[in-house]
Amino acid sequence: MINVVLLGYGNVGHHLHKTFNNASQVEVVQIYNRKPISNEITTPTTTSISDIQEADIYIIAVLDDAISEVSTNIPYTNKLVVHTSGAVPMNALSTKNFKGVFYPLQTFTKNKTVDFSKIPICIEAQREEDLNLLRKLGQTISNEVHQVSSKERIKLHAAAVFVNNFVNYLYQIGQDILKPEGLSFDLLKPLIIETALKIENQNPEDIQTGPAKRNDVRTIQNHLNLLEDFHHKNIYQSFSKAIQDKYHGKKL
Amino acid sequence: MINVVLLGYGNVGHHLHKTFNNASQVEVVQIYNRKPISNEITTPTTTSISDIQEADIYIIAVLDDAISEVSTNIPYTNKLVVHTSGAVPMNALSTKNFKGVFYPLQTFTKNKTVDFSKIPICIEAQREEDLNLLRKLGQTISNEVHQVSSKERIKLHAAAVFVNNFVNYLYQIGQDILKPEGLSFDLLKPLIIETALKIENQNPEDIQTGPAKRNDVRTIQNHLNLLEDFHHKNIYQSFSKAIQDKYHGKKL
Repeated sequence: MINVVLLGYGNVGHHLHKTFNNASQVEVVQIYNRKPISNEITTPTTTSISDIQEADIYIIAVLDDAISEVSTNIPYTNKLVVHTSGAVPMNALSTKNFKGVFYPLQTFTKNKTVDFSKIPICIEAQREEDLNLLRKLGQTISNEVHQVSSKERIKLHAAAVFVNNFVNYLYQIGQDILKPEGLSFDLLKPLIIETALKIENQNPEDIQTGPAKRNDVRTIQNHLNLLEDFHHKNIYQSFSKAIQDKYHGKKL
Repeated sequence: MINVVLLGYGNVGHHLHKTFNNASQVEVVQIYNRKPISNEITTPTTTSISDIQEADIYIIAVLDDAISEVSTNIPYTNKLVVHTSGAVPMNALSTKNFKGVFYPLQTFTKNKTVDFSKIPICIEAQREEDLNLLRKLGQTISNEVHQVSSKERIKLHAAAVFVNNFVNYLYQIGQDILKPEGLSFDLLKPLIIETALKIENQNPEDIQTGPAKRNDVRTIQNHLNLLEDFHHKNIYQSFSKAIQDKYHGKKL
């Protein structure tokens, strides 16, 4: 049995708690959160970090900027303390405990259940024995546990910003373009799903399509003419230049 | 029974043929293609447009630039001739026949079967009776048949470029960032799928996350520092500015 104290009950903390609760080899002995937790949960909670219990692993799942401070305030030494962030180096953690990272590479939404079994869990630790413990913890919830250095993790996180945050913003733009015409965003949903499913078995480089890929400058110009928002135009141009450059060697 | 002659056997033609073959109310009586068709199909084919048979509807599924010419070369008059393009106005078709559009809003890959039942079919026609026939044809394969004007369709197509072509290019960037680290693109796939599935029941505007959304300028700068490709940097900046502007009112 691996005993865990969870520090932070935002999206990541909430989903980790839920999935650990379903894993037979893990027990979340306590959750610390700055504010009282309103959800009905049976796990003991506290809003005072000085009251946290002994455990095998302390998992900090708070906002990036607060990780360092929370790690400093843990009232123990020589314990394993990990954070769950893609963007923060392991060394941001206080030196009074042994450091590690337990980063689930996924986007979490409060009311949407996530199947952890395929989510890559990126682990890192100072000590070999801690790495083994984090691997064991990861394997209780996922089949994809990977050792990833801080340098690699920052790159993974940057890549995730492109394929998650920026992709979601493109969905917003699609919706924004349809709105003035009274056209429903639902019209785009089958295309959005299929676009994502296509890369499961195909290389995105090989399946790129569209006006810029065809170097169809007339359609590109037509689209630029109908786009009214400055940012939409700017993003359209940035992509078209990049895609034309890649597939047609257009230098700027 | 609706008799159809299909002109063009690229991705769209191929998939339309396949789905019409499974619809009991439609018969594809012939396929015209500039080059001989190598697939084993039982439908009669021709490479000579002067040999095409009589039918209720002629569906032109060729490259945008060739639509006008193919429509001119059809050896009939006063028939219903439609194209399948999102980017081309209905009026690009020759005036010698009645014009229409039958635009399936989806991305097609040669060897990947597509379920047409949820694909929006955007129809347009000069004459009311032709619109009714196109609606009937669309309903044999899809539950989502929508009358869409040429002006609306161009906007839909522009939106599709954002949520399909540009999204796929973001997937490429994700892969490009991981490659030098020896990290597999597979690590990003669960995130990519989940990002797409999230918008089925949620508004993309409400679920935007990431450094730009949080106005986390330190992480934005860290990411810009590690991006080496000019276009990646440029796209990162275009998105970050747009998202900061939207959620934090940063004016340029």
